[in-house]
Amino acid sequence: MSKGHDRHLHLGLWLTFLDAAEWRDPASRAEELNSLQPYVEVAEIGERAKLDALIRGDGLGLPLPDPEQAFAGSLEILTLLAALAARTERIGLIGTASTTFTEPYNLARTLATLDHLSNGRVGWNIVTSIAGEEQFGYDEIPGHEERYERADEFIEVVSKLWASWEPDAVLVDRENGVFFDPDKINTIDHHGKHFRVAGPLNIARPPQGRPVFVQAGDSEKGRDFAARHAEIVFTAQNDIGKAQAFYRDVKRRVERQGRDAARVSILPGLVVTIGGSEAEAQELHDRFLARIDYERTRRNLESLLGGVDLSDIDLDERVPEERLPEAGALTRQPGRAQIFIDLAKEKGATLRRLLQALGTAHGHGRVFGTPEQVADHIQRWAGARAADGFAVSPAQGLAGARLFADEVVPILQDRGLFRREYTGGTLRDHLGLPPVP
Amino acid sequence: MSKGHDRHLHLGLWLTFLDAAEWRDPASRAEELNSLQPYVEVAEIGERAKLDALIRGDGLGLPLPDPEQAFAGSLEILTLLAALAARTERIGLIGTASTTFTEPYNLARTLATLDHLSNGRVGWNIVTSIAGEEQFGYDEIPGHEERYERADEFIEVVSKLWASWEPDAVLVDRENGVFFDPDKINTIDHHGKHFRVAGPLNIARPPQGRPVFVQAGDSEKGRDFAARHAEIVFTAQNDIGKAQAFYRDVKRRVERQGRDAARVSILPGLVVTIGGSEAEAQELHDRFLARIDYERTRRNLESLLGGVDLSDIDLDERVPEERLPEAGALTRQPGRAQIFIDLAKEKGATLRRLLQALGTAHGHGRVFGTPEQVADHIQRWAGARAADGFAVSPAQGLAGARLFADEVVPILQDRGLFRREYTGGTLRDHLGLPPVP
Repeated sequence: MSKGHDRHLHLGLWLTFLDAAEWRDPASRAEELNSLQPYVEVAEIGERAKLDALIRGDGLGLPLPDPEQAFAGSLEILTLLAALAARTERIGLIGTASTTFTEPYNLARTLATLDHLSNGRVGWNIVTSIAGEEQFGYDEIPGHEERYERADEFIEVVSKLWASWEPDAVLVDRENGVFFDPDKINTIDHHGKHFRVAGPLNIARPPQGRPVFVQAGDSEKGRDFAARHAEIVFTAQNDIGKAQAFYRDVKRRVERQGRDAARVSILPGLVVTIGGSEAEAQELHDRFLARIDYERTRRNLESLLGGVDLSDIDLDERVPEERLPEAGALTRQPGRAQIFIDLAKEKGATLRRLLQALGTAHGHGRVFGTPEQVADHIQRWAGARAADGFAVSPAQGLAGARLFADEVVPILQDRGLFRREYTGGTLRDHLGLPPVP
Repeated sequence: MSKGHDRHLHLGLWLTFLDAAEWRDPASRAEELNSLQPYVEVAEIGERAKLDALIRGDGLGLPLPDPEQAFAGSLEILTLLAALAARTERIGLIGTASTTFTEPYNLARTLATLDHLSNGRVGWNIVTSIAGEEQFGYDEIPGHEERYERADEFIEVVSKLWASWEPDAVLVDRENGVFFDPDKINTIDHHGKHFRVAGPLNIARPPQGRPVFVQAGDSEKGRDFAARHAEIVFTAQNDIGKAQAFYRDVKRRVERQGRDAARVSILPGLVVTIGGSEAEAQELHDRFLARIDYERTRRNLESLLGGVDLSDIDLDERVPEERLPEAGALTRQPGRAQIFIDLAKEKGATLRRLLQALGTAHGHGRVFGTPEQVADHIQRWAGARAADGFAVSPAQGLAGARLFADEVVPILQDRGLFRREYTGGTLRDHLGLPPVP
């Protein structure tokens, strides 16, 4: 990867087709929320634009049964990606799965199968989960520390399983009747604190060796975990200075692990609103803001901040500092909480601004403007080493994905910032990553 | 379902494209064992023939690392079916998953997603697993009794989760901004011996209400379990008289549960070899027998029979009765073991014949002949109430699937025994099952 403005970006596309409130539009396809077809259309849009990957989170609970929240129900993402693997050829497929609430042998099989079926296009967004314990017999979710400890061992186990078939174990020697070489398939005999797994995996080595490791590590523990394992780091950043500091910090941590920092791509989320003119973009953005349900969003913010009560604060007042928790003391999403604490403390944001930041983009960056302006924003952040690219979330749903692919990406291509064609077949190829040892 | 010979059969197609030894054929596609393409071809063949479903087992271990065994490595089936859901329109998709080594909340999500993405075409082959404990931290596999007890509770939990969204919970009321009705999404608050699960599921009710329940219940416990839950019963039968007795017994058990026996389809496996003439079929069958590795198959039989030593018995001798175990005392697959014990005791089968039954069809029925003869066999068993149809496993791989679809199915259609067109969209429709209450 070369330096400065001309280096190549990596772009992921959030795999959704309905903006959170967009469903009320008469033309929305809200009825198809659980159907394959609209996801296939997003996937095709992303592939046409030669994007690196489709990405999608996943949740285990049904938070706040809220009648306006179309997304409370969410298809299991690895299953959805398997369907999309069968309808795409080149684009990467990044899905989320929990190390806290799954078994390593099962998840290793699912991801290996996905990597085989997609010819090596799978990425695994590794999460330790911030919810869901009540579905798995826990009284409360294991602590931050314990979750990350289990996650480290989980990754050790699945990595050993994926490596349990050596690359040349499959022979298909018809003449001698030898399908595979049993000497090249090894047990792993893992005996750890959290897992005992004998191995080998019962699936041949995946095409990429293993899925690309993706992580969203906002907290201290999360950053260290990302530094040890991640090849893509997702992050929520809405301030270029803070994003630069995060970027420097993570790359430094990666280097301290003896890894090549250039091979870890930092991709902040970016909620994009595209208009034909500046005025149209402004109008779309205003409409986006107008859709926020401040009452509901305040409850979400209170929950993110560890249960603080903000109900007596006027929307146009600042949140008193003594109401704000120490992010480090929070069990769930301390990094994400920090963004809002910073906004309130350092930027003097009113409650309304906090709720806008949460309600429109969950703390991620936002940009609205003409295709040119959106491209400028992307180029500026990348040039300033605040990002290696973005995980783009179109605020206008399927139409927004189309606008990004057809209007913004060509500008980035013309500026030499983004590929015009895929040069390889696997997600590792798209990211310029070397083979797994 | 009408009575006698003219009733409609249900036919599943084993989702494989390589016969166990066929891979040595120069024209085989053994190199594609882990690629999507050949499975798509099998799926298209099955759908063209209007078969009820594709079916496939799954295993968690890598038994007997044996260099001739192409199938030791096996893709995770639910992931494979998700990919096939995206490439097919009507055929049912039946996959295997374990109640012993998965969590109900996770499996409920995967199967609900599959049912959504396939528009209601999913069946779940419920297994309690006979291997794999060493991958999940167990010293030994939980006993037969405990596995079935857990399986009963597992089914209770996942059924509650699938029912946790009432059918009319999703409103998509644009005018009033109400996506779903929170009063119609219910927690399940399950507190059982094996599981504590709060619910609700975070995915809307699947199109079929829940997947079609499929079970292979050979043992006493298995038959009772099937009687309580199954809508399709897979079984290994290689004798029409025993198959009739099994059929009567299972249907009676179903009725004793207060269920309609006509709505439970009993489908024995059937390994099919099709020739253009009787002589050609015989020759193909002989070639099939000649491929058996008697040494390896004997080890498999010894293991199936609970570790008995048969190494000193000549292939053309009978197995002494005192060497044969009581099937009921076996932890793994007592029902399958019974088939071989019966063959040895009642039919006086030589060791060679036992190994042929195991090595070619794992105890399932076998038929070889012209398309007409294969159709006759199917009609005869169905007419004699030994089966409601078959799970067909073509011994000639992809070519065999094509022969079955193009040569045998039309005969069954001409005889009025099998549909010429799908009349519904879901697997429940194909099976003539009423909606889930």
